[in-house]
Amino acid sequence: MERAVRDLKYFLSPRSIAIVGASENFTSISGKPLRFLKEHGYKGKIYPINPKYEELGGLPCYKSVLDVPGPIDLVLLAVNYKLVLPVLKQCAKKGVKFASVFSSGFAESGEEGKVMQQQIADLAKEAGIALCGPNCQGSVSLKDAAIGGFSAALEIRPLRVGPIGYVTQSGALGYSIFNLAQEGGLGFSFIASTGNEVDLHTLDFMEYMLEDEDTRMVIAYLEGIKDGRQFVRLAERGLALGKPIVALKVGRSEVGQKAASSHTASLTGSDAVCDAFFRQKAVIRANDIEDMIDIAALMQSIPALPEGKGLGIITTSGGGGIVAADAAADLGLDVPELGPETTAKIEEVIPAYGSALNPVDVTAQVINKAEDFWHVLDAMVAHPKIHALVIIVTMISGESGRQMGESIVKMSRMTKKPLTVAWPAGDKLMGDNLKVLSDGGVHYYKSPVRAIIAMGRLMNYATFRKGYLAGRDTAAVGSTPDGAREKALALLDEADSSLTESQGKRLFALYDIPVTQEDVARSEEDAIAIATRIGYPLALKIDSPDIQHKTEAGGLKLNIGNQDEMIAAYREVLANAKAYDTKARVNGVLIQEMVTGGTEVIVGMNNDPQFGPTIMFGLGGIFVEILKDVVLRIAPLSRDEAMTMIKEIKGFKVLAGARGRAKTDIDAIADVLVKVGAMTVELGDRIAELDINPLLVLPEGQGVRVADALVVKK
Amino acid sequence: MERAVRDLKYFLSPRSIAIVGASENFTSISGKPLRFLKEHGYKGKIYPINPKYEELGGLPCYKSVLDVPGPIDLVLLAVNYKLVLPVLKQCAKKGVKFASVFSSGFAESGEEGKVMQQQIADLAKEAGIALCGPNCQGSVSLKDAAIGGFSAALEIRPLRVGPIGYVTQSGALGYSIFNLAQEGGLGFSFIASTGNEVDLHTLDFMEYMLEDEDTRMVIAYLEGIKDGRQFVRLAERGLALGKPIVALKVGRSEVGQKAASSHTASLTGSDAVCDAFFRQKAVIRANDIEDMIDIAALMQSIPALPEGKGLGIITTSGGGGIVAADAAADLGLDVPELGPETTAKIEEVIPAYGSALNPVDVTAQVINKAEDFWHVLDAMVAHPKIHALVIIVTMISGESGRQMGESIVKMSRMTKKPLTVAWPAGDKLMGDNLKVLSDGGVHYYKSPVRAIIAMGRLMNYATFRKGYLAGRDTAAVGSTPDGAREKALALLDEADSSLTESQGKRLFALYDIPVTQEDVARSEEDAIAIATRIGYPLALKIDSPDIQHKTEAGGLKLNIGNQDEMIAAYREVLANAKAYDTKARVNGVLIQEMVTGGTEVIVGMNNDPQFGPTIMFGLGGIFVEILKDVVLRIAPLSRDEAMTMIKEIKGFKVLAGARGRAKTDIDAIADVLVKVGAMTVELGDRIAELDINPLLVLPEGQGVRVADALVVKK
Repeated sequence: MERAVRDLKYFLSPRSIAIVGASENFTSISGKPLRFLKEHGYKGKIYPINPKYEELGGLPCYKSVLDVPGPIDLVLLAVNYKLVLPVLKQCAKKGVKFASVFSSGFAESGEEGKVMQQQIADLAKEAGIALCGPNCQGSVSLKDAAIGGFSAALEIRPLRVGPIGYVTQSGALGYSIFNLAQEGGLGFSFIASTGNEVDLHTLDFMEYMLEDEDTRMVIAYLEGIKDGRQFVRLAERGLALGKPIVALKVGRSEVGQKAASSHTASLTGSDAVCDAFFRQKAVIRANDIEDMIDIAALMQSIPALPEGKGLGIITTSGGGGIVAADAAADLGLDVPELGPETTAKIEEVIPAYGSALNPVDVTAQVINKAEDFWHVLDAMVAHPKIHALVIIVTMISGESGRQMGESIVKMSRMTKKPLTVAWPAGDKLMGDNLKVLSDGGVHYYKSPVRAIIAMGRLMNYATFRKGYLAGRDTAAVGSTPDGAREKALALLDEADSSLTESQGKRLFALYDIPVTQEDVARSEEDAIAIATRIGYPLALKIDSPDIQHKTEAGGLKLNIGNQDEMIAAYREVLANAKAYDTKARVNGVLIQEMVTGGTEVIVGMNNDPQFGPTIMFGLGGIFVEILKDVVLRIAPLSRDEAMTMIKEIKGFKVLAGARGRAKTDIDAIADVLVKVGAMTVELGDRIAELDINPLLVLPEGQGVRVADALVVKK
Repeated sequence: MERAVRDLKYFLSPRSIAIVGASENFTSISGKPLRFLKEHGYKGKIYPINPKYEELGGLPCYKSVLDVPGPIDLVLLAVNYKLVLPVLKQCAKKGVKFASVFSSGFAESGEEGKVMQQQIADLAKEAGIALCGPNCQGSVSLKDAAIGGFSAALEIRPLRVGPIGYVTQSGALGYSIFNLAQEGGLGFSFIASTGNEVDLHTLDFMEYMLEDEDTRMVIAYLEGIKDGRQFVRLAERGLALGKPIVALKVGRSEVGQKAASSHTASLTGSDAVCDAFFRQKAVIRANDIEDMIDIAALMQSIPALPEGKGLGIITTSGGGGIVAADAAADLGLDVPELGPETTAKIEEVIPAYGSALNPVDVTAQVINKAEDFWHVLDAMVAHPKIHALVIIVTMISGESGRQMGESIVKMSRMTKKPLTVAWPAGDKLMGDNLKVLSDGGVHYYKSPVRAIIAMGRLMNYATFRKGYLAGRDTAAVGSTPDGAREKALALLDEADSSLTESQGKRLFALYDIPVTQEDVARSEEDAIAIATRIGYPLALKIDSPDIQHKTEAGGLKLNIGNQDEMIAAYREVLANAKAYDTKARVNGVLIQEMVTGGTEVIVGMNNDPQFGPTIMFGLGGIFVEILKDVVLRIAPLSRDEAMTMIKEIKGFKVLAGARGRAKTDIDAIADVLVKVGAMTVELGDRIAELDINPLLVLPEGQGVRVADALVVKK
């Protein structure tokens, strides 16, 4: 299933571009690319293609791509949808490797369009053309001024080059975000709009951009996810590289999903699974377009990711510090106390009504002396528990504001610790002071909360990443016992569409997942022998592929204390099953150890259409039934991931031994989660879903037992 | 306890202002007010007071307020803190009714300051001077150009007058918010900064502003709440008037509270109680300064509150609609389907790849014809299920953008349904189009999510308000049985600091709160008679004011099935109690009906320092122990409020009969909550806390019983 990263170098940064359908109306979709390329100073070759013209914008114009003298890296198609297929055929003949199709009228327009879209897809595949679109708004490499798009957002000159790679599934909204970000000072390495995604899709571009050395962060607007496993792979790569991925993944709600499916062909998939994956691999989920821009703008302005989650807050007004502290708490950041030495240092320069606690309130007074503010800044940045700094400036205008700005810019150049500013005031009053910051490369926000959220998300990302890199035992993840798969396949072959309890447990046992001691008795003698071996108390269950609901069928007897009871139960269970369904095939009676004193948890697996085997964990009883208190992760799972999962449920305290309860064997649960993850990856092509309900968790050190389980074949 | 609304007319809109300490340095704190008053065109009389000058800024300058020829409505004190007391004495002599003290150096600066602050407070009270501050940044009535402040935020000319009243406990942050809002186009009726709040405090200003006819919404930055009952009263008044209150209440977190207490004298109080109150009375809680401004700006721009929570979304790009739909779902808004008629109407003018569902995707194409967009706008506004409209515009620049803007402005003038716009793009590219909207009085956002949040908050407020006004049976709320208080006081007088279970239940019975049938037996004969009257099964409990933990003392016997068992249990309970504590006073043995089959819930009351009696409700067992699944409300409670409370807990489904459980008597729980609310308001001066644990809830129609209860006297 693993694919190589698609090499999009000459798609995004082509040495030559042909524009098929190029027009002399330079404000139209087909006219703008040529104008943009010239205006922004593209250095490669430009070939306008249109039989109507001899020359266009001062360049020779060709009748077809076949008439172009040199090789063409990228062809832009801005033609009527009916001409796309013939033009692509010419591209194939010319040996073009990349094409971007702006034309609409395909799958988004109805049945005829769908057919034509498929023809395009087939041709591109056959000819080895990597194709973006149709119905896309094109892509841009900003550093190369390679403008392969027509959006009005590209009218702004100069476009701001920077470290952010950006992919969008929505053309118009996507370029709106781009324009908003650009005007806010955010610089991009690339932008790509992917349209109907017949071939190249969002993840392909994200994966490529991650590897680009000028790109420090990849942001994406996503409606659907074409290939969940590819997303996992690229998210892991992002973690390895320390390049955060920020995703605005929409279609979370029912109405949103409905709107999405009427908008694009892409299925939005289960948002719960997607969200679980984001947590698992630290994909930063943006709540809004501004949220995404806020985080990217901070990343652009800081020299390195924060080293931890100790946040220093300096404020010129008590209120600003409180607002910031609340927001920091929401994100789970530390706002560490500074200790006597630093506190004393700060108290030297702030008035009595200030505060040398963290948040440090320097008050409006201290900024009358620039060196006093510098003194505080220096003390905070030097503090080992402070990994990043947010400075909140309220109503400091004029010269003192300018001096504060200059101090902050100066400090930002002297330290690797990230810092940012919240300066809640209008541009009219503060204009020049704010310009000191932006010209100095320090990003600022108009709201303390937005500043803290942006910084906090990066702090949490960086903290997660450290733990992830340390705890990711890649050897252990996904490893299964030798020969298990062969035996499992044999077991699955012999089973019906659903495995019986006994078959299910044999399957688990193959993967070293602890199950109750048990065996199927086919006669009373058998039953006595098995019972003697296991020891009382016991449970007896009918073993039949045709009886799913054992209780309903009277096929279940619990707490059997001795041999006489056992024999009576054996007969009763068989008789009940017969009465319940005369045609049921009966393998025998399952004789099983009675596990007492365990806490019931549930472990499940669903084969998600996007992400493949996905593991579910939750506490039994009302926690699942009433509270839906479950957590999901994509398989395979590392031990750390399994542990995080367990701790994430609301009822975790029940397992940890709240209020006089015994602490349960949490390690053993994690072990099962890891093993179920590895097993279902190995058997993902054969198992549709499984449900261990309950897994009984015994007190610490005593392990767990699969007490009942359902496995459904694929 | 009820106080009249303080009349702050001539504080906020004085006919004459004296500035004590007025300075010729017009950029200093003491110089700015005079300059601001003149620059902004204040029409009243201005009296600069400073013995150093004969004349200041072209006005005669006086040696003291006593030298001023006419009456003075408001005195601003911009003098050294040591001079505040003598100046106030002169004000008292002059008969001044209002003073605003800018000077700092009081409680915020240490012990000496605290003493001086108390002296000021005492003097103001004695002289009948309504005093704001000290350490405040003053107040402004914008419509009167009555600038009683010195903040740099007041440099902007002209200040924008509008329908928003604004009170802030933080001076610097508060005026930062003001400036940010003003430059964003938000107009204010008043702003007041309250400083150390020795006399006039935030709630006084909020209460006054609510009554002002030019004020349609009151917004507040709050650190502490001086008088919770006053807040309740003014919130109810706001609901009656249809003037929403938006509060940015900070100090939610531990770090935030610590920062707040180091910043002001005001205790932040329990945030959980405050938050519960906000829900109960629909005080809109802002998460951020921008959030607060967003909501206020929308209120300013719409003709009336929405009539319900049916939201229409029009978008020029599918993506914008999905983002908006997700945000609407988060807020619990309806995004109703439009039905065949409206859908057909819309489909007339949009292309096949658009969508006539709600969100309606008109696509970028439709805007080429302004009348087509108008057609869709008209169809949406006319739809009876649509109560408000959010229009999302992506990358529509130039002439077509201008036309869209004009259509939206035109429609906003023809309908009472609120509408707003999200236009995510930079000012450079979109400048003129955005100006069409702002000049036309339509507020727009740069983010679809922010637009939806602002509109959604007002929709939820208006929907709540309708239900509140309909369901608020003011007669029933707080009503208690005649004569209950006298009997209750007698019972409380005879009890120790905590009531015994039996005393507690007698107290509840006085207020018609159903308790288990029971009586205290003082002899075996007694016991037999009581048992025969109640009927078996029974529970026996030791009745002693000295034994709190009955189980530990062996003073509890359950499920007594007959008379023999009962007598044995009676003797055992007495003997155990004696053995447990030989000195314990024993009243006898409580003989109690055994209630079986009930669901355990908990009802509590705490006397909150800010808000007084506060009622807590939760499910028993793990819901409270592990999940802290409890909900709070301020007493007294209406029946609607009690019902909302019950439905708000996560485990509500348990009560509603999830998964085959019997539906419980929810009405009877609501009844108890209402009665406990009324009772604790009536006895709030005598009861510190109470805890009904458990209240047993029987199946629907069978009521509830207080099974055990603890009442602690005040």
